Amino acid sequence: MTKKDAPVSPEARLPKGLFDISAGEIRATEEMLGTIRRVFESYGFEPLDTPAIEYTDALGKFLPDQDRPNEGVFSFKDDDEQWLSLRYDLTAPLARYVAENFQSLPKPFRRYQSGPVWRNEKPGPGRYRQFTQFDADTVGASSVAADAELCMLAADTLEALGLKRGQYVIKVNNRKVLEGLLDQAEIETGHQRLVAMRAIDKLDRLGLEGVRALLGEGRKDESGDFTKGADLGATQVSRIMDYLTKAQQSVVKMEAAAKLPLSEQAIASQEYHLIEGADSTFYSGQGMEGEQELERMRGFFFSSGYGLDRIRIDPSVVRGLEYYTGPVFEADLTAPITDEKGQPIRLGSVVSGGRYDGLVER
Amino acid sequence: MTKKDAPVSPEARLPKGLFDISAGEIRATEEMLGTIRRVFESYGFEPLDTPAIEYTDALGKFLPDQDRPNEGVFSFKDDDEQWLSLRYDLTAPLARYVAENFQSLPKPFRRYQSGPVWRNEKPGPGRYRQFTQFDADTVGASSVAADAELCMLAADTLEALGLKRGQYVIKVNNRKVLEGLLDQAEIETGHQRLVAMRAIDKLDRLGLEGVRALLGEGRKDESGDFTKGADLGATQVSRIMDYLTKAQQSVVKMEAAAKLPLSEQAIASQEYHLIEGADSTFYSGQGMEGEQELERMRGFFFSSGYGLDRIRIDPSVVRGLEYYTGPVFEADLTAPITDEKGQPIRLGSVVSGGRYDGLVER
Repeated sequence: MTKKDAPVSPEARLPKGLFDISAGEIRATEEMLGTIRRVFESYGFEPLDTPAIEYTDALGKFLPDQDRPNEGVFSFKDDDEQWLSLRYDLTAPLARYVAENFQSLPKPFRRYQSGPVWRNEKPGPGRYRQFTQFDADTVGASSVAADAELCMLAADTLEALGLKRGQYVIKVNNRKVLEGLLDQAEIETGHQRLVAMRAIDKLDRLGLEGVRALLGEGRKDESGDFTKGADLGATQVSRIMDYLTKAQQSVVKMEAAAKLPLSEQAIASQEYHLIEGADSTFYSGQGMEGEQELERMRGFFFSSGYGLDRIRIDPSVVRGLEYYTGPVFEADLTAPITDEKGQPIRLGSVVSGGRYDGLVER
Repeated sequence: MTKKDAPVSPEARLPKGLFDISAGEIRATEEMLGTIRRVFESYGFEPLDTPAIEYTDALGKFLPDQDRPNEGVFSFKDDDEQWLSLRYDLTAPLARYVAENFQSLPKPFRRYQSGPVWRNEKPGPGRYRQFTQFDADTVGASSVAADAELCMLAADTLEALGLKRGQYVIKVNNRKVLEGLLDQAEIETGHQRLVAMRAIDKLDRLGLEGVRALLGEGRKDESGDFTKGADLGATQVSRIMDYLTKAQQSVVKMEAAAKLPLSEQAIASQEYHLIEGADSTFYSGQGMEGEQELERMRGFFFSSGYGLDRIRIDPSVVRGLEYYTGPVFEADLTAPITDEKGQPIRLGSVVSGGRYDGLVER
């Protein structure tokens, strides 16, 4: 808006996708964040605050075009004609902080951060242009002990927030296992791998037949909308379906085993390990590596007293973020959630994470 | 930066004027803010959070030129080609919020807010491009009882933060008294009034002779730099100097009276009231109105048990913000503050505020 056509008395209004937060919600959020902080600090995580603004190039792939500097992020130039942006997550600023201070940081470096992030997107239901994230990361720990620790921490945090044992479950998998599966099915193109991975991610919601359709030509949903599939060959589809069928059987078995005493759970959970019937020829090298990492994590869980009622290996977990390279996990609520009218709500995972090696390249 | 000349691996660095905040400082700040919140909530103030981004026109005078959209604030356009800006304080968003929700708000509406604000300025010593503000405001209270309440609240807050009685003092004045003084001295031009007001504001630091120079032709400081003055006539200067001389005597007298028992303080403080020797012809109508408002506030302080050792009327207090229209106050630390090397630090006021009528024009 230029000065010339500026209204004399502009209407008081918030831009769409942005919201004022009232006292009740602020207090509830503060209390929740205070609880989460307390649990994370008991595990040795320290707070870190980075500013809202970073050099745009430090935010990685969201480098704006000169013609469209606001694609995805809010960007602007400073007096020195350098592009600045509002952070769109707390991970890119962490990578910048670690790269800048690598020499002086204790290793492993454990930090948590909570604060607003900004997305320059069309706002819609549940899509805001400013919202709060809470992130905790361990930097410089090559052993999967750090990944196991984060899963146990997630379980402790949910219980500190008032969830009872059995009302949640932390589901763990490893990207290498999934990559190994795609290797073994000889899926070569990046696009087909991506679409196949996304199809596997929907097992929970669409079931085996829904995933099979998305691995093949595609799927029409109840509303009649058609989603194009990965167009895999019949052998490729059947290899993945074989894995997923066994994965589902394993999930059911682990669910049942969760009701046993802890010592029996430990024995029962070993049966999961290589997924019933799968042998080493089923996976490529990285698939086996992923299985071994999961096996080590399983050991940490049981030796620390976290049973199958709290943390389970679930071969169908994928997670959306493309930069994950190893263990991934998500926490799901197992008790049904309803809205004010008693209608069930599908919440999705309430906590999630994973290992991403190589974010800070030095 | 265009994609073409983007470096392959950009150097990890923060833009100037922005800072990462480490664990120790985060904890100290959280503890301090928690204490301040607790005291403000005990006075019935409720938290409110507004987003970081507002329509630029809602931020008032900082409306950017089309050619220089970043003058003073960080601004950018959204998909609808509307100018958005990062807030530069918490007052303009409050005005927007009150205008938008006026009908449904309880009156008076008391809210506090703390959070980052952004300034697009050349960073320098003590000048940052992101920093935290804590604001508390009462909306829709026409009586000066609300102003007196904020002064008492400031005193309580400083003590809750660990300051002892006598280590701080809340100094109160009224802009109407100062405007009345300038009226009476027949200072007509806006520029001269502004420069004269700024000169009075420096009484603390420069003493009577320094202010006299700034009311006249100007002043050369120790480094040899010359500051141009208000160029007032001799009669105008002497009227103001007469007021300031008596004001200084009053300040000394109140300082001494602060050591008396509370009941005697109340009597002694009445002597201040019209400033020794000043009669009603000294002030214009708004000057007298300001004096009456101060007198009512003085009554609230004593009837609530806040003696001269905590809150004093000080005729030399001005405050920088141009939008103040009535009572103004600031809290100064009276104990000397030293840096790590034992050198004294001049801190200035640690809390300040005032009444601004007319921010939300409806």
